[in-house]
Amino acid sequence: MKAEILSIGDELLIGQVVNTNASYIGQKLTALGFDVKWITTVGDDQEELRKVLDAAFQRADVIIATGGLGPTHDDVTTKAVAEFFGARLVLKPEILDRIGRVFERRGLEMPKVNEAQAYVPDNAQLIDNRVGTAPGLMFERQGKYLFVLPGVPQEMKAMMEETVLPFLKSKGAGQAILMTTLRTVGLPESMLYEKIGDIAALEQLVSVAFLPTRGGVDVRLTARGADEEECRQRLEEAENRIRKRAGEYIYATGDEGLEQVVAHLLFEKKLTLAVAESCTGGLLAHRLTNIPGSSEYFERGIIAYSNRAKRELLGVPAEVIDTHGAVSAESAVAMAEGVRRVAETHIGISITGIAGPTGGTPEKPVGLVYIGYADAATRFAQKHIFTTERLLNKERSAQAALEILRRRLLQW
Amino acid sequence: MKAEILSIGDELLIGQVVNTNASYIGQKLTALGFDVKWITTVGDDQEELRKVLDAAFQRADVIIATGGLGPTHDDVTTKAVAEFFGARLVLKPEILDRIGRVFERRGLEMPKVNEAQAYVPDNAQLIDNRVGTAPGLMFERQGKYLFVLPGVPQEMKAMMEETVLPFLKSKGAGQAILMTTLRTVGLPESMLYEKIGDIAALEQLVSVAFLPTRGGVDVRLTARGADEEECRQRLEEAENRIRKRAGEYIYATGDEGLEQVVAHLLFEKKLTLAVAESCTGGLLAHRLTNIPGSSEYFERGIIAYSNRAKRELLGVPAEVIDTHGAVSAESAVAMAEGVRRVAETHIGISITGIAGPTGGTPEKPVGLVYIGYADAATRFAQKHIFTTERLLNKERSAQAALEILRRRLLQW
Repeated sequence: MKAEILSIGDELLIGQVVNTNASYIGQKLTALGFDVKWITTVGDDQEELRKVLDAAFQRADVIIATGGLGPTHDDVTTKAVAEFFGARLVLKPEILDRIGRVFERRGLEMPKVNEAQAYVPDNAQLIDNRVGTAPGLMFERQGKYLFVLPGVPQEMKAMMEETVLPFLKSKGAGQAILMTTLRTVGLPESMLYEKIGDIAALEQLVSVAFLPTRGGVDVRLTARGADEEECRQRLEEAENRIRKRAGEYIYATGDEGLEQVVAHLLFEKKLTLAVAESCTGGLLAHRLTNIPGSSEYFERGIIAYSNRAKRELLGVPAEVIDTHGAVSAESAVAMAEGVRRVAETHIGISITGIAGPTGGTPEKPVGLVYIGYADAATRFAQKHIFTTERLLNKERSAQAALEILRRRLLQW
Repeated sequence: MKAEILSIGDELLIGQVVNTNASYIGQKLTALGFDVKWITTVGDDQEELRKVLDAAFQRADVIIATGGLGPTHDDVTTKAVAEFFGARLVLKPEILDRIGRVFERRGLEMPKVNEAQAYVPDNAQLIDNRVGTAPGLMFERQGKYLFVLPGVPQEMKAMMEETVLPFLKSKGAGQAILMTTLRTVGLPESMLYEKIGDIAALEQLVSVAFLPTRGGVDVRLTARGADEEECRQRLEEAENRIRKRAGEYIYATGDEGLEQVVAHLLFEKKLTLAVAESCTGGLLAHRLTNIPGSSEYFERGIIAYSNRAKRELLGVPAEVIDTHGAVSAESAVAMAEGVRRVAETHIGISITGIAGPTGGTPEKPVGLVYIGYADAATRFAQKHIFTTERLLNKERSAQAALEILRRRLLQW
């Protein structure tokens, strides 16, 4: 079955917003076996919307439109869709109530303008919006389906996952496609490529794509076949071959982040952790506390930006800083030990480095980072030289610290 | 003049690659005064390409296509375009030589497969590729222009900047367009809309769009006119009107983040800051340390996730936690005061709340957050009830804390 994605919004045309919604929807539909053949972007323009809806209904079986459901004057999608289907807009009191409650929960009165979001085409099925105010819409015409969803990514994704994808899955797409992504950290793309070896042989089984991310390299495997079972076998065989060559660099499959993997290991082994950060300025702690329930393993984080904070809060001896500098293996180990001691946790981990863009010297360039690790049995520091870009250095450093935790926890 | 962007490639349809090329081209064309009306994405499929070229030539004056110029069997754009224009593909020896030299420079022999890139439609003007191997193509038909560029972002951008944009600028778009974005925080979209008031009158001057982001609402103003001067005057008048009604919520124009605004104020007033975080787990400190030179104002951050850490590191009295709870105005103020005292900074700021998804009670629901503020002259806490989504709650909380800092620093 053929699918079309309609992305609606002036902000997409003028390049103010990158169309990540279309990528997300493309991925999800493809994973269900649908052939995404077109992504069409138009502005908040009723006349153009009518034209692209017309074209989409002629060529596609499933159409997913996003954007233009907001409460303000520039949002015209509901009107355009109603006109296209010759529908009347009717007030749904239950939607109005729900929108009112969204504001009430935040202690605010609902602005008059939000009432518009409770008017919906009388022939649409409504899709509940658990996250925001505008409901989604679903239409059927001659066995073809149109879904109209908000452009706000978290609202759109919630509706896709809870309503649209289960519905489409139940309809079926006529072929099987299975994908898996092996997430790696620690090797640049070309070295990982060489390590995995004979890609041509792998491509007999699945198609293979290398996707460098800011935190590592993802390897995506796509298997096509008559049924799910054939796809599953192809994926399994391909994954096994890759793991034999490069398994130690693979930290997860799917879309799991490295912080989730580390959190699961900490939960499972009932271990606690404290963090001492300098150049990453809280990013490592932020990632470790993105996991629900993180208070079970995360005791505290110290962002010791100044040398005084390193001495006072982590007990890093003044002579270590004087002799080796705050950015050194010795300081990193002292920070990890220090935070572990004051927090009374199983593990202490630290990061100290030169994030840049300035502050580097010939001996200690921008991008130089030491990660310190301490537990009851061992302590060490790992040296890295990353890039000249501040934010990327923060990200790479936090990722490297999480990878140290993962490898150590696997052996615990 | 109307413009259409054609993005070509299976990787875009299946969501493996996000279409940042279209955003870049949309920005550049809009800045030159062209109306980008459509972005159309299709796969590496000759038949579909012919159809979308046909539609584009009917509705647009300028068409920029990217992707599908690579050397392998799956790249079909050149063939499709030649077929569309009834052109023959001819070998250009000077292109073949240049491709050979690209490999030579890297000490490699040119793979046979790259020869295909030296075959170009006999009626195309060629656009030099300074970065990669495939030349770009330009066609004119009845005063309309089609540019065909590689999908590799750095190759496409080099051709745009060196050839396509100067050419289009010389042709002129028949109008001038100027834009500005007013970034706001603190009011939901619909409340901001009502606060700004008579949008119809504003739209006599400029077009106005409301763009909710994860940290607030951006208001984009677009002025069209005969020349730049007219656009500038329209923008200025519109911005003044909006500032009169809602100026206090505007923290920046353009693409500056709230942390940059706060950092500039701290630099300018030579003030220092320390941060005490609970539910945000380091995110506020991370944002404050994303700014180069942040060590001038950022002394330390304490991520006091456990109550013990709140007592030991911030001196929050046990009875405050026992009586009011760790998530309370009293605890927030005590945390802000505590971190300011131990860090000896001008300002202390704190966040304590229930990030979720679990841990809420009827009195203290998920999304309840207190921000504490302390300096030598004042101390207070601000209460918020955000959402039920953990990461969004962390982001909103950090943004609210930055906004408190901005407002306070403006009066310093």
